[in-house]
Amino acid sequence: MGYIEEFIEFLSIPSISALPEHKPDVARAAQWLKDRMTRAGIDDVRIIETKGHPLVFGQKPAQTQDSSKAPTVLIYGHYDVQPADPLDEWHSPPFEPQLRDGKVFARGASDDKGGIYPAILAAEDVIKENSLPVNLKFLFEGEEEIGSPSLKEILEAYKDLFACDLVLSVDGGMFSREIPSITTGSRGLAAIEIEVTGPDSDVHSGSAGGVIHNPIHALAEILTGLKDSEGKILVKGFYDDVREISPAEREEFEKVPIDEEQIRQMLGVPALFGEPGYTLAERMWTRPTLDANGIWGGFQGEGTKTIIPARAGCKITCRLVPDQDPQTIYKLLEDHIKAHVPTGVRVSVRVFPGNSKPYVIPEDHPVLPVMEEVLKELFGREPIRVRLGGTLPIAAAFLDILDTYLFFFAMSGPDTNVHGPNEYILTDDLDRLRQGLKLFWDRYAGCFAQD
Amino acid sequence: MGYIEEFIEFLSIPSISALPEHKPDVARAAQWLKDRMTRAGIDDVRIIETKGHPLVFGQKPAQTQDSSKAPTVLIYGHYDVQPADPLDEWHSPPFEPQLRDGKVFARGASDDKGGIYPAILAAEDVIKENSLPVNLKFLFEGEEEIGSPSLKEILEAYKDLFACDLVLSVDGGMFSREIPSITTGSRGLAAIEIEVTGPDSDVHSGSAGGVIHNPIHALAEILTGLKDSEGKILVKGFYDDVREISPAEREEFEKVPIDEEQIRQMLGVPALFGEPGYTLAERMWTRPTLDANGIWGGFQGEGTKTIIPARAGCKITCRLVPDQDPQTIYKLLEDHIKAHVPTGVRVSVRVFPGNSKPYVIPEDHPVLPVMEEVLKELFGREPIRVRLGGTLPIAAAFLDILDTYLFFFAMSGPDTNVHGPNEYILTDDLDRLRQGLKLFWDRYAGCFAQD
Repeated sequence: MGYIEEFIEFLSIPSISALPEHKPDVARAAQWLKDRMTRAGIDDVRIIETKGHPLVFGQKPAQTQDSSKAPTVLIYGHYDVQPADPLDEWHSPPFEPQLRDGKVFARGASDDKGGIYPAILAAEDVIKENSLPVNLKFLFEGEEEIGSPSLKEILEAYKDLFACDLVLSVDGGMFSREIPSITTGSRGLAAIEIEVTGPDSDVHSGSAGGVIHNPIHALAEILTGLKDSEGKILVKGFYDDVREISPAEREEFEKVPIDEEQIRQMLGVPALFGEPGYTLAERMWTRPTLDANGIWGGFQGEGTKTIIPARAGCKITCRLVPDQDPQTIYKLLEDHIKAHVPTGVRVSVRVFPGNSKPYVIPEDHPVLPVMEEVLKELFGREPIRVRLGGTLPIAAAFLDILDTYLFFFAMSGPDTNVHGPNEYILTDDLDRLRQGLKLFWDRYAGCFAQD
Repeated sequence: MGYIEEFIEFLSIPSISALPEHKPDVARAAQWLKDRMTRAGIDDVRIIETKGHPLVFGQKPAQTQDSSKAPTVLIYGHYDVQPADPLDEWHSPPFEPQLRDGKVFARGASDDKGGIYPAILAAEDVIKENSLPVNLKFLFEGEEEIGSPSLKEILEAYKDLFACDLVLSVDGGMFSREIPSITTGSRGLAAIEIEVTGPDSDVHSGSAGGVIHNPIHALAEILTGLKDSEGKILVKGFYDDVREISPAEREEFEKVPIDEEQIRQMLGVPALFGEPGYTLAERMWTRPTLDANGIWGGFQGEGTKTIIPARAGCKITCRLVPDQDPQTIYKLLEDHIKAHVPTGVRVSVRVFPGNSKPYVIPEDHPVLPVMEEVLKELFGREPIRVRLGGTLPIAAAFLDILDTYLFFFAMSGPDTNVHGPNEYILTDDLDRLRQGLKLFWDRYAGCFAQD
């Protein structure tokens, strides 16, 4: 069987973690992985059960040097996939993979079966040649698309088994197909809900209008008190722990070719927007945010209903940057809101669990130049350093529990329709990841040999 | 049959206009009315069909003087009632009326069968004695509780039939059982919906946070730009047409015994609120309002969803006072909102039909002293002049179409559980309305005789 045919076999398993009816498929994909990893020559391959979907683990000691002296690299990825709807927008069925124009179309082709399959091939290549230069460990989870609910618990429980010098995530992608990139950080997250309460029940806006404060207007006052009309957050102390980026980072980010007009058009907004004094890249990667994700109150039906509602509420999440701490941010938000309660209403603030610390790889981490060299060799040009505007709870979890930084090492471009219809991966990118991993293991092991 | 037994028979008909399954009951109540009015000696009694529920009309020329010289009084009321739920909170079934402690308990007892039934009895009394001093007309509608959707059309169509010098509404009530009151005006209404649009679809708050404006925050900015934190409306020109109340009116309103602490407790708010420089009565009756009645946008479910929503919207109604015009207010609102569109979003304003002009009886209207005298005689104390904070589209309609002012002449107190469980009316109030109407007709006719 050619490797593309085998990849297609893997992609045909609809391992959708979010849908209970696909639980057997998720288990089948885990079993497929276990078999394939075993055939690749990886040792100790096993399925680790969780409260949800299982993880697949395997490891292989270094072959070219004493494994106790070789560095240990843990490859992280996931074999579960997103639901495939809307089905009618797919040109070929999501779980009947098709190879067209050098692209494999299927759900999971890029995210993330196209990450973990080449990683197994790369390992197989070097193991067969008896030339594995690092200790390899594999951790492939089946719950990434539903937020990795079991990962922290499993990391804690199998701390020694997963111990490593470096986590390499094959889930991710490059800034563009031409420009290689290294993601050096992601923002944290803190979430709250605000509820403003006025009268005991909805009241007639004729008899109470001009007599009591309206919870919707009071909530609007609170919201405009949290962030000004230019996007600067007004919560007292909110920016106190924000680490200003270094001139070197600023210079790095300036190299990132961001086309603001293209982004504006893609999002469909009349103008971009954000905190004055920072570039778009800086705002997206290095500045914290405060965004209402939802708001509600009173009558939402057709027509009019002349009431002053009893209550109004909204959900807010903040993206956090180093060195902001979610717990401190909660306290600042609560203090600020409680200090600015409008007349005539009551305000409560609810803190949501599931916060996440910001994550950033130190600028001088020794792996960065190694990875830069490898990417330069693979792409024929200098990589740029970028960050993620989003949140990577797993990166923070690896750092917290295993004391290990996570580096992305994934080759797919930004246009592979991840989570959408017609997801695909270039066969070239499968090859590039397979070659790139071998190159990286070699160069990384080299650093340790020089010690 | 005693008159209470007959009243109970009328109340037993569940003429709920809002519920289609009660359409036959509404028709039955109209028929009951027609029969009863005919028996009272009223002429020309007829049921006028509408697209919805019918109106009942009847008339009787003056008996004590030449009807062409006598003034014409049109008695307005309604025989439809509100739905009765929550049923389990009624101490006796809503359509099995009970007389307890001088009160008749039933849905519609106060609103408004307890208004129209005594009016028929009063007419019957004087007609029998051959002493009717005014021309009487009766217009009882069956759609008041659903917003009188047919009334305007019917008033236009039967303009001549309904022509009169004065409309007397037996739907309404007194400020309190001890303090008689005359309602001299009500506020108008204008309604809009604002929609703020940002990105084409909900976007990830990690990748777009700090990059684009959030429609919820933009909407909050618009709302705080419409009204300040003390309740003053900031829309340019909004107060330009507001007629300041006269010193005499201000003095009248100061006589109204309003217990602010009681109102605060009743509504359950921590403090009352409103435009500085005006008393509560002035704010409620003579100052315009701008209130959001509902707001929505983004995620409203449990937990968190880290999005920046594509859109957010809200509904706003303004209560208007003389001489504000809904059309002018629409224009001012639109102009103001369009002049204050936050960066990075689009804003649309939708105007709702169904606006209503403010309504106010001129301070020197000649009927006011007549009614004051009658109320003083009935209650043994000077009546106060009050207004309604709400909107009376029918009063504005009578004025627009028939060129006639509507005066309330209804005796029930403010605590008769109108629209709620255990609605009731005091048999004393039925008697007082019956006597009061006869007294008023007499005194009113007297004014004309003096001409």
